[in-house]
Amino acid sequence: MDQHILCDIHSPDDVKKLDETQLSELCTEIRDCITETVSKNGGHLASSLGAVELTVALHRAFSSPKDAILFDVGHQSYAHKLLTGRFDRFSTLRTEGGLSGFMRPQESEHDPFVTGHSSNSIAAAYGIYRAKRMRGEAGTAVAVIGDGAMTGGLAYEALNNVGNGRSNFIIVLNDNKMSISRNVGTWSRAFTRLRNRPHYHHLKFAVNRFVLRIPWIGGALNEGLAKIKDYFRGLVYRNNVFMGLGYNYLGPVNGHDIAAMESLFKIAQGYTRPSVIHVITTKGKGYAYAENSPRSYHGVSPFDIELGASDSGKKNFSDVAGKTLCRLAEKDDKICAITAAMTTGTGLLDFSSRFKNRFFDVGIAEQYAVTFGAGLAKGGMKPFFVVYSSFLQRGYDQIIHDAAIEHLPLKLLVDRAGIVGEDGESHQGVFDAAFLSSVPGMEIYSPACYEELEYRIEETAGNDSLCAIRYPRGCVGEAADFDFRQDVSTELHGGKNAVVTYGRIFWHAKQAVKAVGNTDLYKLNKIYPLDLQTIEKLKKYERIDFFEEGIRSGGIAEHLAGLLADSGYQGRYFIHAIENKFVAQATVSSALRHYGLDADGMVLRLTKDAVTEEV
Amino acid sequence: MDQHILCDIHSPDDVKKLDETQLSELCTEIRDCITETVSKNGGHLASSLGAVELTVALHRAFSSPKDAILFDVGHQSYAHKLLTGRFDRFSTLRTEGGLSGFMRPQESEHDPFVTGHSSNSIAAAYGIYRAKRMRGEAGTAVAVIGDGAMTGGLAYEALNNVGNGRSNFIIVLNDNKMSISRNVGTWSRAFTRLRNRPHYHHLKFAVNRFVLRIPWIGGALNEGLAKIKDYFRGLVYRNNVFMGLGYNYLGPVNGHDIAAMESLFKIAQGYTRPSVIHVITTKGKGYAYAENSPRSYHGVSPFDIELGASDSGKKNFSDVAGKTLCRLAEKDDKICAITAAMTTGTGLLDFSSRFKNRFFDVGIAEQYAVTFGAGLAKGGMKPFFVVYSSFLQRGYDQIIHDAAIEHLPLKLLVDRAGIVGEDGESHQGVFDAAFLSSVPGMEIYSPACYEELEYRIEETAGNDSLCAIRYPRGCVGEAADFDFRQDVSTELHGGKNAVVTYGRIFWHAKQAVKAVGNTDLYKLNKIYPLDLQTIEKLKKYERIDFFEEGIRSGGIAEHLAGLLADSGYQGRYFIHAIENKFVAQATVSSALRHYGLDADGMVLRLTKDAVTEEV
Repeated sequence: MDQHILCDIHSPDDVKKLDETQLSELCTEIRDCITETVSKNGGHLASSLGAVELTVALHRAFSSPKDAILFDVGHQSYAHKLLTGRFDRFSTLRTEGGLSGFMRPQESEHDPFVTGHSSNSIAAAYGIYRAKRMRGEAGTAVAVIGDGAMTGGLAYEALNNVGNGRSNFIIVLNDNKMSISRNVGTWSRAFTRLRNRPHYHHLKFAVNRFVLRIPWIGGALNEGLAKIKDYFRGLVYRNNVFMGLGYNYLGPVNGHDIAAMESLFKIAQGYTRPSVIHVITTKGKGYAYAENSPRSYHGVSPFDIELGASDSGKKNFSDVAGKTLCRLAEKDDKICAITAAMTTGTGLLDFSSRFKNRFFDVGIAEQYAVTFGAGLAKGGMKPFFVVYSSFLQRGYDQIIHDAAIEHLPLKLLVDRAGIVGEDGESHQGVFDAAFLSSVPGMEIYSPACYEELEYRIEETAGNDSLCAIRYPRGCVGEAADFDFRQDVSTELHGGKNAVVTYGRIFWHAKQAVKAVGNTDLYKLNKIYPLDLQTIEKLKKYERIDFFEEGIRSGGIAEHLAGLLADSGYQGRYFIHAIENKFVAQATVSSALRHYGLDADGMVLRLTKDAVTEEV
Repeated sequence: MDQHILCDIHSPDDVKKLDETQLSELCTEIRDCITETVSKNGGHLASSLGAVELTVALHRAFSSPKDAILFDVGHQSYAHKLLTGRFDRFSTLRTEGGLSGFMRPQESEHDPFVTGHSSNSIAAAYGIYRAKRMRGEAGTAVAVIGDGAMTGGLAYEALNNVGNGRSNFIIVLNDNKMSISRNVGTWSRAFTRLRNRPHYHHLKFAVNRFVLRIPWIGGALNEGLAKIKDYFRGLVYRNNVFMGLGYNYLGPVNGHDIAAMESLFKIAQGYTRPSVIHVITTKGKGYAYAENSPRSYHGVSPFDIELGASDSGKKNFSDVAGKTLCRLAEKDDKICAITAAMTTGTGLLDFSSRFKNRFFDVGIAEQYAVTFGAGLAKGGMKPFFVVYSSFLQRGYDQIIHDAAIEHLPLKLLVDRAGIVGEDGESHQGVFDAAFLSSVPGMEIYSPACYEELEYRIEETAGNDSLCAIRYPRGCVGEAADFDFRQDVSTELHGGKNAVVTYGRIFWHAKQAVKAVGNTDLYKLNKIYPLDLQTIEKLKKYERIDFFEEGIRSGGIAEHLAGLLADSGYQGRYFIHAIENKFVAQATVSSALRHYGLDADGMVLRLTKDAVTEEV
């Protein structure tokens, strides 16, 4: 593929040198490069394609890294990576040791902050901005945030704080009329009203062009002009939510018109109060399949560019969870499902259309999802909040305070639990067993196959427990060959040693135990609280090895260590888990291998002499 | 004190029977009763006094518990308790086994949900509301939320979701022009603008009176009337942030005029879209000291009614933290302090006035505080976020994602760590050691005296660690008699047994060890990660007892259990911590006694035969 302009872009300065024709060509090359790479490596396609011109305009109007440009969530950051010296390495996107699919400061000085979890960009960028001012450094900071990310409470908290001060801080609202799923909430409606004011846009432009013709003559006059423009603006559009919060509101502007955006970005730099620049983009722009079906091309696995992406059709844990909820909801009109903007990812698409009144997509608002769900439970319904493990971290306080203090029967279906693979550090589901098990009264299950997941959802739907059922991303090949109705399943060979584990890596442990021989296997189905009868059984072993696909500190293996100590256990006990580190991007199998949590790794650990085992 | 009307109020129905004169008398009696009780038991005085007429009006317009009335945070709920059958028990407020200072469903059917942590009321009440509708039950739900609580992201997430649907759900914005500290942010300014529109209020009232004269003729016409009123309203005030979000906006209304509020509450019940009713109250109303200095009377210790509350003047951990930060900030212009609406409570009042540019009160927005702080750290500043332990739970994801992935040197000063006493379940700081120690790269310290706290703040200000320094509420009598510069301090007597502990209960452990004799004492100063040299030293003991003022699951004692197991420790190890339960309200010393974490309890545990020790 011809990328003769792109391959000469080594830094944002190079983008500034291009003329209009070259810019247009550059955008085409960027799109080709992104589509090609994502078709091979998987990734976030539609949002990245939508933000190409926006990114080019940003790098022409601002000077990164002097100006900190932060793309919220990082889904939109691929073009930014290509324009900031990472074209050569772009083919390594989302691979082990390669470029991250999100913003990562370790990777480039042009990535000022980690983005991966939604809605943190305004808060983080404003922190950087205030630090610059306090240290007397030049430059501003820009948070580029999608309309979907604006549904998160962290974004609102930031809006409330940023709007309060004098600054030339800039928020670019990249409004592609949808978040990952259909956008929700009243803010979305407010954005729609703003979008439907084209005459305002034209008036605005007339004023801006007038301003641009005047040589730059200092912040004071610029501010004066801002006031004049406010007056014009006021004539057309009396007020909007951003102006109400103390911001300059600029836009809406066509997010595929580089010159128009560039001029607004430059104007906003001269203001002395923060601006919201409302940019309208088309998600998936330039790749017909993605443009027509942006939701399917939000995050994709590798696909054929000519044919487009297709559903793998493979059964997976998310589908099973969704189907099971549908089946239960048919029989029980108290079953409700809640998602935080992940209808498709969590397997709830079918539920959302079949049980509209009992389905709640709350936006990227995990805190609200938990508290609202607890309210539904209090009101006598049976709510299931289906959520990715790493995003549930946002609901920790609400789980403790709103659900657990009164022991309300909220059910958490924790998808993407354990190692998730290519999304890397920010998305690994390795903390949930630790933080959920710190919550009084919480019960936690960790199915290793579809039948077990189905069984646990059905079982807990019928009881008053506050519980979490956690299951990994994707598929599992194996069918249940153990009694998952028990709290603990065992494979006893009369050995002196035992292996304890739970969840997906049970299948690895099974192989490892077979290879090693003379070792009993305990699979925890209910991983918290642990069953004291099992402790009694475990006491008799000379050596116990616990394999845990999760953070060690606060995890289930440590709980067992405490209980074994209580029981007076005299043998050796070894914990094999993820030690005080973030798990880097790599395929799941590679990451499991790295942490010694696959069958081979387990065999190695189990055959080591206990005495020489490293701490 | 004469309370002849109040003592006859056994349920909200009784409030509905009173005439105007009796209502006025009732409010006086409620105020007297609240002031008297709080002067004896301590509690949240100013907000409760401000909400007396509001509460009376709510119970006249609505029918609790059919209509669920939820007071956010619960600071305003004392009058509600008095009107819902709890007058007889009100003298037990905040005492062991007595009434909670917050809303507690266990206590009364009139408390529909736990409130204690700010900003959850809209989400929880809306969950209850939707459950009612799905189950075909009568009644509506009302969230009463202060302007301070509106700065929390959870409230925004809820506003975004609630505004989206058809309902007669009601939000009462109790606007007393301040949260716990001075209110912050652009929303606060938006409220001020609304408040300053008295002519709007009058117009509104004219329209409402007109509506009230019409017999109730169904939702449809009411909705039609709402539209007519929208038109009138539009003439005066084109738009405001709530209308922009899809709400009926009613008000502002005098929050001490029962009849005026009652009529608005009744109107809102007939609507088919959600309402925000903006009520203006005076914090501290009716008790001159509190009215003049509402901040000092937000949460108070017992005081003399005639003389008013006075600062105890006793040195405490919060003061030491604040003073130390001031001392460091004088020498180092990179030191910043962040609080989430707790300037006074966290000891930052002096800092806030002396270092205005480096002080950030972000509102009740712990998520933002962490991410913004991480941004400041990224920008080269040295930010300290000073926060209560139980509120930091809201920032868990941000600590992991925004601070820890890049290992940014954010410092968390975790006040109210451990048992807090009379505030009860929702406010106990018993989870922080568990959830913070699950975060990769986090270092945690737990000072037991002022010198140690001071030393750790100074030490960590000078390094690049991501760390938390946690310290208890209130005072400690003892001065350092150990070397707090070490990670671990020891008192060795050559015993065969060892006690390990950290934080405030070290002083109890010291007494216990002395009483028991022949026992070595290890005080962890750095509680995470644990030092492997200490593990080597501990290995030689026959028995180790770990006392932990925190939740067992995921706590430091369990981490030690794992490390001892790794090391091949052959002795007995006992964990004494808070087991899978919420800690009820009681004085700190009573709670410590209950959990066997005071000197006497420790002696009892230590002198039990190891073999018969209960699990």
